[in-house]
Amino acid sequence: MKVELENVKPMEIEKRSFEIITEELGDTQLVPGTELIVKRCIHTSADFDYAENLCFSEGVVQRALEAIKAGACIVTDTQMAKAGINKRALARYGGEVYCFMSDEDVAKIAKENGTTRATASMDKAASLDKKLIFAIGNAPTALVRLYELIEEGKLNPNLIIGVPVGFVNVVQSKELIMESGAPYIVARGRKGGSNIAACICNALLYMIDNRRD
Amino acid sequence: MKVELENVKPMEIEKRSFEIITEELGDTQLVPGTELIVKRCIHTSADFDYAENLCFSEGVVQRALEAIKAGACIVTDTQMAKAGINKRALARYGGEVYCFMSDEDVAKIAKENGTTRATASMDKAASLDKKLIFAIGNAPTALVRLYELIEEGKLNPNLIIGVPVGFVNVVQSKELIMESGAPYIVARGRKGGSNIAACICNALLYMIDNRRD
Repeated sequence: MKVELENVKPMEIEKRSFEIITEELGDTQLVPGTELIVKRCIHTSADFDYAENLCFSEGVVQRALEAIKAGACIVTDTQMAKAGINKRALARYGGEVYCFMSDEDVAKIAKENGTTRATASMDKAASLDKKLIFAIGNAPTALVRLYELIEEGKLNPNLIIGVPVGFVNVVQSKELIMESGAPYIVARGRKGGSNIAACICNALLYMIDNRRD
Repeated sequence: MKVELENVKPMEIEKRSFEIITEELGDTQLVPGTELIVKRCIHTSADFDYAENLCFSEGVVQRALEAIKAGACIVTDTQMAKAGINKRALARYGGEVYCFMSDEDVAKIAKENGTTRATASMDKAASLDKKLIFAIGNAPTALVRLYELIEEGKLNPNLIIGVPVGFVNVVQSKELIMESGAPYIVARGRKGGSNIAACICNALLYMIDNRRD
């Protein structure tokens, strides 16, 4: 075996990874209180662009932690993000994760209205009588619909994690959310994804747990 | 609404995205026959690094397509990747997706042996009497164990998709796979992830379907 492996115990890998990220970030300025979120996004992607592109509305982290502790539920736009969110950690505070994308009623309504299933999913979510955090890693149309629902006074989310990835209307949909008045965490530009959406949820959950890695 | 959205129909968004990626790649040289895989990784991440870091063993794409058509199963190291793989498309050829990470026997054996669950998962996979494609987006220890199993003559995989992401032993584990003699698709360096692992599986499936986007 010519390749040399670092001798790091399984339990220590995440800790060591965060140390490397912190070292390589060097003097990069992060918004105080958001460091663990930014570093976890870099940990999930090995992409240091997240040190530059993550935008946080005023006081959003504290508000998000309070919402989770008060039992907020998370709505995502992909089964992948749902699979990635630590549902056991969320359940400790009474929250659940929903993804309505594969629901038959959502598919039917989307077809009838000529919209995306993501749009119809957001309408379904808006009808829930719960504190809601939206974790959108894929569909810009989900963010556009959230913006409209907020404008129409039909939705008052506790947090929008706006991190769809892609090339068509992704940049614009994130700018819309930053103008919506809702508390947001947004990856400005084209980057993001279901993995980043899940990772930001988990970062918040681990901050409550005081898991300082 | 100050933000201006592009008027692209839901069904056209992926096509338009691939056109933009092709435009922006410009004269970048890609290995012939791998273009749809590389572009889908960029589509999934908005990260053009995948045009540079993806490595393909000789003839791997053709071999992978033949394996899938012959009913190969896919083994992943995360529930997220499993959630992201198009299981319906795979099932058309008789294949299934497995992720053993949450299995009780895997947790038990990992604890007993002081290894990761990813390592124990690979041992469990190696005992399957099936054509196997490994899609590893998270755990370098999974790749290290696959290398050992191949060296020990206990495993003869049809394809290893080696795209874990991270900072500890990730780079090295990928180099190991490229020395293993197994057919591989590897994202050299730190980058990758469950989303990239799933996306490469889907790119292969869509190539069989002749979905030329």
